[in-house]
Order: sequence, then C-alpha cells, then structure tokens
Amino acid sequence: MHLDVTTWSHVFKLDPDKELSDEWLERICLSGTDAIIVGGSTGVTFDNTVDLMSRIRRYEVPCVLEISDQDAIAPGFDLFFIPMVLNARDPQWIVGNHQKALREYGAILDWNQVMTEGYVILNGESTAAKMTQADTALDIKDVEAYARMADRLLHCPILYIEYSGAFGDMALVKRMRDLLHQARIFYGGGIDSPDKARQAAEAAHTVVVGNAVYEQPEQALATVQAVRDVRAHQPS
Amino acid sequence: MHLDVTTWSHVFKLDPDKELSDEWLERICLSGTDAIIVGGSTGVTFDNTVDLMSRIRRYEVPCVLEISDQDAIAPGFDLFFIPMVLNARDPQWIVGNHQKALREYGAILDWNQVMTEGYVILNGESTAAKMTQADTALDIKDVEAYARMADRLLHCPILYIEYSGAFGDMALVKRMRDLLHQARIFYGGGIDSPDKARQAAEAAHTVVVGNAVYEQPEQALATVQAVRDVRAHQPS
Repeated sequence: MHLDVTTWSHVFKLDPDKELSDEWLERICLSGTDAIIVGGSTGVTFDNTVDLMSRIRRYEVPCVLEISDQDAIAPGFDLFFIPMVLNARDPQWIVGNHQKALREYGAILDWNQVMTEGYVILNGESTAAKMTQADTALDIKDVEAYARMADRLLHCPILYIEYSGAFGDMALVKRMRDLLHQARIFYGGGIDSPDKARQAAEAAHTVVVGNAVYEQPEQALATVQAVRDVRAHQPS
Repeated sequence: MHLDVTTWSHVFKLDPDKELSDEWLERICLSGTDAIIVGGSTGVTFDNTVDLMSRIRRYEVPCVLEISDQDAIAPGFDLFFIPMVLNARDPQWIVGNHQKALREYGAILDWNQVMTEGYVILNGESTAAKMTQADTALDIKDVEAYARMADRLLHCPILYIEYSGAFGDMALVKRMRDLLHQARIFYGGGIDSPDKARQAAEAAHTVVVGNAVYEQPEQALATVQAVRDVRAHQPS
C-alpha cells in the first residue's frame, strides 16, 4: 500500500450515503486507482461509514476517511483527512467542528494518520458551498491567497479545489499548483469522462472522481487509465 | 540577536497607539527581555507602527510585528506574527483577514519571517474578545482541543493563551503546555508584578508583559528579572 499521498494521481471518492453494488465496488477498488476516499456532504453516519469501509477493506487499496461529521468518525481507516473550508462564512467549517472533534478524540488520535485539507469551494450551487456558506465570489487573486494560506500559513499537505458538481477552471487549478511550496493540489468536480480526467490531471497533482461513480460508472472507471496516460508523459 | 522564539522566556508587547517616553522605551529595550512585540487591538496604523518600530530599532532587541490590521503591515521587523483567533465566532479573525493580507502581500512575503500564533482568548471582558466575538465560555477540555488544534492540526509554532486585562488560570496554562507536541505557549494578561510574572513563567514557555508597561512601568520592568530567576531554577 502507498500511504504517501504525494504519489497519488487518481483517487475515487465514495459516498457512504449512496448505493453501490458489490460488483461495482470491486471494479472501483481493483481499478488501479491510488486510493479510495470515503466522504460525503449529507447523510453520512457512523453505521454507513463503517459499512462502506468494511466492504472496501476486502481489497488492498488504501482507504481514507474524509471527516465531515464527528459522529461518523470510525476507526480502521489508513488515513483521516480533515477538511478546513477556508472560504466558509460559517466558522464551524473552518475550525469549529474540528475543535469539537478534538475535544472528544484529541487525546487518543494517532496524529501520524491525520492530514489537513485546505478546501476552497468554488461552485456556489453545490451542496457543500451552501452548507458551509462558502464565499464563492472569488477572483484569481483571492484563490491564490487561499492557496498560500493552506500551503504556507496552515501547512496543509493538501489544497483541495472543489467544484463539486461542475467541471472547473483548469487554468486556475494549474496556476494554484504552480505557486504551492509543499502542498499537493487535489481537484474534484465534474470529472465524468476520460477527457475531463486528462485535463484535470494536467492541472492538479491528484484527480478526485466522485459522483460519476454513481452516475456514469463505466466512464468513471475509465478515468483511471486516462490519468495514468497523462502521468506517463509527464515529469513527476 | 536571538530570533529563535523557542529560547524566549520573556517579551514585552508595546502598543503603537499608546504613548511611551524615550526614557521608558530605552529602559524596556535594554531590560534584558528576549524580544519586543509591537501590536494592539485598536488604533494601530501604518504610521504609528513604523514610528514605534523605528524607535525600537535604535536598540539590539529583536522586534516583532503582531499583525492585527493589514493596513498596518510595515517592513523592517525581524519577524511577523500572524494571530489566528481559534475561538473567534467571527471568521474574519480566524482566516478572513489573513486571506485579504495574503491577497496583497502573499507573493512578496519572506515566509521565513512569518510565524502563526494560535490564539485562545479567555477573558470575555477584554477588547480583543469583544472585537473577535470570542467564545470564552470554555471548559478545560475545550481549551485542550484548541491547544491540540494549534499544535498538531495547524502546526502553529505558538499557542497564545490570552487573558488580556486579567491574570488567568495558571493551572490551565501549565496543563496546556504539558500537552503540546511542538508549539510554545505564550501567556499574556494581567502580569503587573514580579510575583505574577514568576507564576506565569512557571506555567508558560514565554511570558508576555503588555499593559503594565504603561500602567506600572517599574513593576513591568521588574518582571524581566523575575522570569529569569524562575528559568535559572528550571530545566529548560
């Protein structure tokens, strides 16, 4: 298993609140993707999180929990990603929920398994944007400032550019990648075809494929090879 | 000059918006304190910041700007401390103002001079608490969670426990110090005598003396030796 996220170019994000057949789960887990992230915006519970985790655990692929609700924190994952929504207007999504979770689990956490994600949510129509009251009226200089904040001020190992539900501006994503000092850029949103995966792989370090798994699974599966093809022709 | 904050046991915090005679400034700067922090909650401007900095610059003591207002960011300091008020209810004081400042200065900043302070403001009556809408109704587990957040999640080199205007709970401060992994704990608030400075030095890594400089300057000056005496009898 590779738990070094800096080597990941493709990950799938699976939502505990959505149905996925055993057959499709197997195809996803054996696809050659670098990791599976378990996470979602709504309806995520301890039970459906543990259920999905234990099904993924039949395979060797690294399995990460992206924590969005402290009641759904379950042991047994390889890593725990902690999203901090930097452009949230509601401070609960910046540090508030994190403080509550640390109050409960801070003393027993294995910090070697914990990584922060500096999130910037850019699609104002998305559930994530509405839930966090994200300020999505940002120009490129605003996003640059958030990128530097995640990278240099907060030392987040991951800057997550989230367009959730829409395919974003890849020129912007690439520009953020080029200014990062240590963080890796994860891109998520609207990757529902190999072609879009290729474009995203050219801009971001790591491409996250989520909804397409449920909506166009064959296309979603084909994104793994598409990203691999881009990497094969790129210097790392 | 020592720019390694991990060696600092005593610092003075001077407010650009308050009057200090040349004679007293000299006594402060030559007191043997480890550094001078320039910062305040209200009335801080570019002009009064530069004025105070240039007066301190006549002496060899390290001089830090604690940035509270982006309009008062001036060059010429040895270090720049960036406070993030973790228990602020207003997100501007967690990351919002920081994003605006990075939007302006992010590309030209010397990041080697920048350090984050994870602030927890505990005196609800203070100007700082009111300005940031800090949630000060915290029990010890809440403060522990913020301490771990600053230390392990945000990688802040400084956890700043701020009682601003009142002398705090030194048992709490010491408990926070003991759970930190890498951060140093700065304590500020109500240190207006050598005795209080001693108590604070036994609890925190670094003791910050602020208002007393203006209100009881002889007592303030005597805190330097008081802290030194404690350190002389302590393992580092």
